Amino acid sequence: MELIKRLLTGDRRAIARLITIIENDGAKAQEALAALYPHTGRAHIVGVTGSPGTGKSTLVNELAKVYRQRDRTVGDQTSLGIIAVDPTSPFSGGALLGDRIRMRDLSGDAGIFIRSMATRGSLGGLARATADAVKVLDAAGYQTIFVETVGAGQSEVDIARAAHTTIVIEAPGMGDEIQAFKAGITEIADIFVVNKADREGADRTVMALQMILDLDHSSHLSSQSPGWRPPICKTIALHGEGIGAVVEAIAEHAAHLRESGNLQRRERERIERELRSIITQEMARNFFEGLDEARFDSLVDNIIRRKLDPYSAAVLLLKG
Amino acid sequence: MELIKRLLTGDRRAIARLITIIENDGAKAQEALAALYPHTGRAHIVGVTGSPGTGKSTLVNELAKVYRQRDRTVGDQTSLGIIAVDPTSPFSGGALLGDRIRMRDLSGDAGIFIRSMATRGSLGGLARATADAVKVLDAAGYQTIFVETVGAGQSEVDIARAAHTTIVIEAPGMGDEIQAFKAGITEIADIFVVNKADREGADRTVMALQMILDLDHSSHLSSQSPGWRPPICKTIALHGEGIGAVVEAIAEHAAHLRESGNLQRRERERIERELRSIITQEMARNFFEGLDEARFDSLVDNIIRRKLDPYSAAVLLLKG
Repeated sequence: MELIKRLLTGDRRAIARLITIIENDGAKAQEALAALYPHTGRAHIVGVTGSPGTGKSTLVNELAKVYRQRDRTVGDQTSLGIIAVDPTSPFSGGALLGDRIRMRDLSGDAGIFIRSMATRGSLGGLARATADAVKVLDAAGYQTIFVETVGAGQSEVDIARAAHTTIVIEAPGMGDEIQAFKAGITEIADIFVVNKADREGADRTVMALQMILDLDHSSHLSSQSPGWRPPICKTIALHGEGIGAVVEAIAEHAAHLRESGNLQRRERERIERELRSIITQEMARNFFEGLDEARFDSLVDNIIRRKLDPYSAAVLLLKG
Repeated sequence: MELIKRLLTGDRRAIARLITIIENDGAKAQEALAALYPHTGRAHIVGVTGSPGTGKSTLVNELAKVYRQRDRTVGDQTSLGIIAVDPTSPFSGGALLGDRIRMRDLSGDAGIFIRSMATRGSLGGLARATADAVKVLDAAGYQTIFVETVGAGQSEVDIARAAHTTIVIEAPGMGDEIQAFKAGITEIADIFVVNKADREGADRTVMALQMILDLDHSSHLSSQSPGWRPPICKTIALHGEGIGAVVEAIAEHAAHLRESGNLQRRERERIERELRSIITQEMARNFFEGLDEARFDSLVDNIIRRKLDPYSAAVLLLKG
């Protein structure tokens, strides 16, 4: 495949083309992924998640600048990938707006590749498309790949699980603390960032996080990096303050993963999960492609009239 | 089934037991759902979603009080169900905390049934468990059922799609407007609520929403309620202000759905989606129960070594 050859040299247009192919799914996507897969496994993947309004995009932009500054001094030209995931846009091309704004901010740097992803429609489709886009950038030689997700739902958790290092961003004054911290999202964090640290309540947010880390022994053991206590970094991303500490925390966590053996464990879990998800989606695709539409519709009619329940209808359809 | 008989009389302990059975999944859950399904289809389901910090729980509590006040004057004792969904707690029982706090606030009213749901673990599991819990309350005779979801991810969209009326809550000052409004979540809204309306920027938030509604003709046509322009209600839920207008908007939207024929269309779409999702999950369950674990593990080994890609491995496993 000519496109893969160009990808392996870091050709930006080949990267963009391949991600589009992946988003459109189908046989061509699977062929491409099979061809590029042997060249993956070298990048460090950093997931960044947090509620809207925490300043996530600004932080990622600032992180990108620090990474690029560092990489340019060693003469590295293709080092940083950013994938911005917007699972809240299943209907619109909403992600494109954020994309364009961000492009403006980091434009002119050939060493940064930025891509926004909206949903692919199918169940779990976005998590899968994102994981595949990461593979494209990985194969193209990008050493660090940020995957930024909006919000805090199941999709975000799935995406976080596919990263090596997961950063969870909080901001002071985002509603009462209970709301923010009941979220199990804190338990997927390898690094916490309290952004907008110049705002009132920042110290309270840091203390609340520390308390959770102190108390929550059990969740620690079940977290993605046993033996690692997530550091809490304070930043004011808008002014570029505190970014260096976050970059250091990412490097320390990467070192911890390598040295503790957690990297292998996480990699295996990630691949098992991915394989299961692909199998489920392929089975569903095959089934619905061969579906007797008239029979499906008549069963739906009966469900609407409450003559049949959805589970029994599913069992009937699966029997063939 | 004795439990179903008790459910149909509105027995609260039977409701709680049945929701627990559903959460635990399995054959017993399917049997119960089949038995209670003929008694469903009467409730009006109201989805409420919004980012953390918008005051969602407070608003739902205030709405509940208004509904209960109204219902008590007509002597109705079992009228309002609240299901609080927390898709961000896949690891912890985090939802329970919010549950307990809320219970305190609305306790002593036998006419309100409140239940928190965390994830059931499987793909799409939470959306399905929530839809099933709604069926239990529906069969028990609850006329209005609020389904409250945290955040703004794919799970929330799925849950919103299962409601008759979807309320999207915004609050002023939740980060820059682009962040908040690029979210396609605005396109699933039947009613907007701008809560914390006494805060600076509330009018700007209302105006931004109005602009989106003015501009977005195409998304309107593709929305869940063609011919309906979502009203924008301003509330200060903490002081119980503006709640009456939201209750009215819900009633108006319900009337619109009935009169326009949109209700039937939405109901069919909802049931088709549910049936597809159940089929997918059942297929996956059957497949993985019969899986050759040793073969699966050896394929994962090969993927880790980059000798095989996940798609090709999935195809091999599906061939049997």
